[in-house]
Amino acid sequence: MKKNDKRPIGVFDSGVGGLTVARSIVKHLPNEDVVYFGDTARVPYGNKSKATIIRFSLEILRFLKRHDVKMVVVACNTASSFSLPAIKKACSIPVTGVIGPGVREAVGLTRSGRIGVIGTTSTIQSCSYGRELARHGAKYRLFAQGCPLFVPLVENGFIDDPITYEIAGRYLKDMRAVGIDTLILGCTHYPLLKGVISDVIGHYVNLVDSSFAVAREVKGLLDKHGLGAGKRQRRGKIKCFVSDDTAGFRRLAGVMLGSSIHVRKAAI
Amino acid sequence: MKKNDKRPIGVFDSGVGGLTVARSIVKHLPNEDVVYFGDTARVPYGNKSKATIIRFSLEILRFLKRHDVKMVVVACNTASSFSLPAIKKACSIPVTGVIGPGVREAVGLTRSGRIGVIGTTSTIQSCSYGRELARHGAKYRLFAQGCPLFVPLVENGFIDDPITYEIAGRYLKDMRAVGIDTLILGCTHYPLLKGVISDVIGHYVNLVDSSFAVAREVKGLLDKHGLGAGKRQRRGKIKCFVSDDTAGFRRLAGVMLGSSIHVRKAAI
Repeated sequence: MKKNDKRPIGVFDSGVGGLTVARSIVKHLPNEDVVYFGDTARVPYGNKSKATIIRFSLEILRFLKRHDVKMVVVACNTASSFSLPAIKKACSIPVTGVIGPGVREAVGLTRSGRIGVIGTTSTIQSCSYGRELARHGAKYRLFAQGCPLFVPLVENGFIDDPITYEIAGRYLKDMRAVGIDTLILGCTHYPLLKGVISDVIGHYVNLVDSSFAVAREVKGLLDKHGLGAGKRQRRGKIKCFVSDDTAGFRRLAGVMLGSSIHVRKAAI
Repeated sequence: MKKNDKRPIGVFDSGVGGLTVARSIVKHLPNEDVVYFGDTARVPYGNKSKATIIRFSLEILRFLKRHDVKMVVVACNTASSFSLPAIKKACSIPVTGVIGPGVREAVGLTRSGRIGVIGTTSTIQSCSYGRELARHGAKYRLFAQGCPLFVPLVENGFIDDPITYEIAGRYLKDMRAVGIDTLILGCTHYPLLKGVISDVIGHYVNLVDSSFAVAREVKGLLDKHGLGAGKRQRRGKIKCFVSDDTAGFRRLAGVMLGSSIHVRKAAI
């Protein structure tokens, strides 16, 4: 067991959305560094096939290994839905996605056991959330709904907009009818639509943003494997790489995080 | 000069949209075969950078060369906006994009000289249509507007929908105010929104769908270079390849073309 392991944590996403997870990690684990990779040349993943997403994920894993990461966080819901077994097979360091932590948080919050999840088309079709929830026992029921227009709406600045309310109303109509009490936001972009989603689904419904839960999961894995950075003089940093040019990423990071970020282009 | 050149014409797009161009070619040139490549693993191109789109285009060119194509048609407006010089430099066969033919058609239709163009963010930011129109003289004025939500709306079946009318109303508000008489649909997906766009911009505005103009351009280039297939016993066929799995492409081809298509996955 190593102590005071200063190597960074590797985090990746199809684009900019996973930065919310990276930020959550350095906020809750201020001694840890993060190497972030956003696959902006091939974004989005949410409408692509399992085989293609696994191929992309393994290419990114090789990139993160070159940066000597001590663990891998798959911050993209779609990649988490498809690639976790392949990534775990291809490396010996701890790996976590966002599905498990999100489901655990939802199970802790629900009273009725009726849980909803919304995500990209590929995430929902993968049934990853249903499989994960089934591990917690038979008393939970999952209601799933793809919301493929939410990502382009967010990325084009339609955040608090009547059009977004109208589209959310259509997507969430059936889910409102079945009476859930907890809704997992199964895509890193969706926390930006929290206000709209809460207004439409009902303010009594708990909204689960996995980024907090993932930071807790990361802490647990670092402790378990003795990989924590220990104390250091400075706060942890996020080193950020993307596969497309950096201008678009910086613009979107501004839209999504409301702050600027230093980022470099990298070939994978 | 070769006669009766039976080699296929290479056509590529970021995804399924360029099939409208491929169909137009085999309809107007029924003796010609087409090899089509849709880069569905990395779609869309409309929010990516120039450098990345050129890199993708040259990779696809290599794929088409392996299929011994006699000319290349860049059916994607964004790739046409960025990659034509690089593609022409990398091969000795005739190459055409969709910008030039679309602009020529618009110039032939306009009476006021006030022409509009709508497209993806990258296409509009490239100013490719403005540069092309400038070659036709100073009497034309171009009004350009990015419509980044149109592609996701089409791909998610929001074709003849109040939401699409509302979004089109916002995108086209300024263009309606400046009084164009001709509007170039600068993205292969937009012809599916012809009804909505015409209702919003005004039925007196000519809508230019480049796919017809491109087929004419292809015929002109084949004639000029003596590359026509000549007469043959059967009608020309479209051989279709994609970089992601084929199921999603077949579904979208159904949405966009209203018919099924045989397609194979190919690594590039």
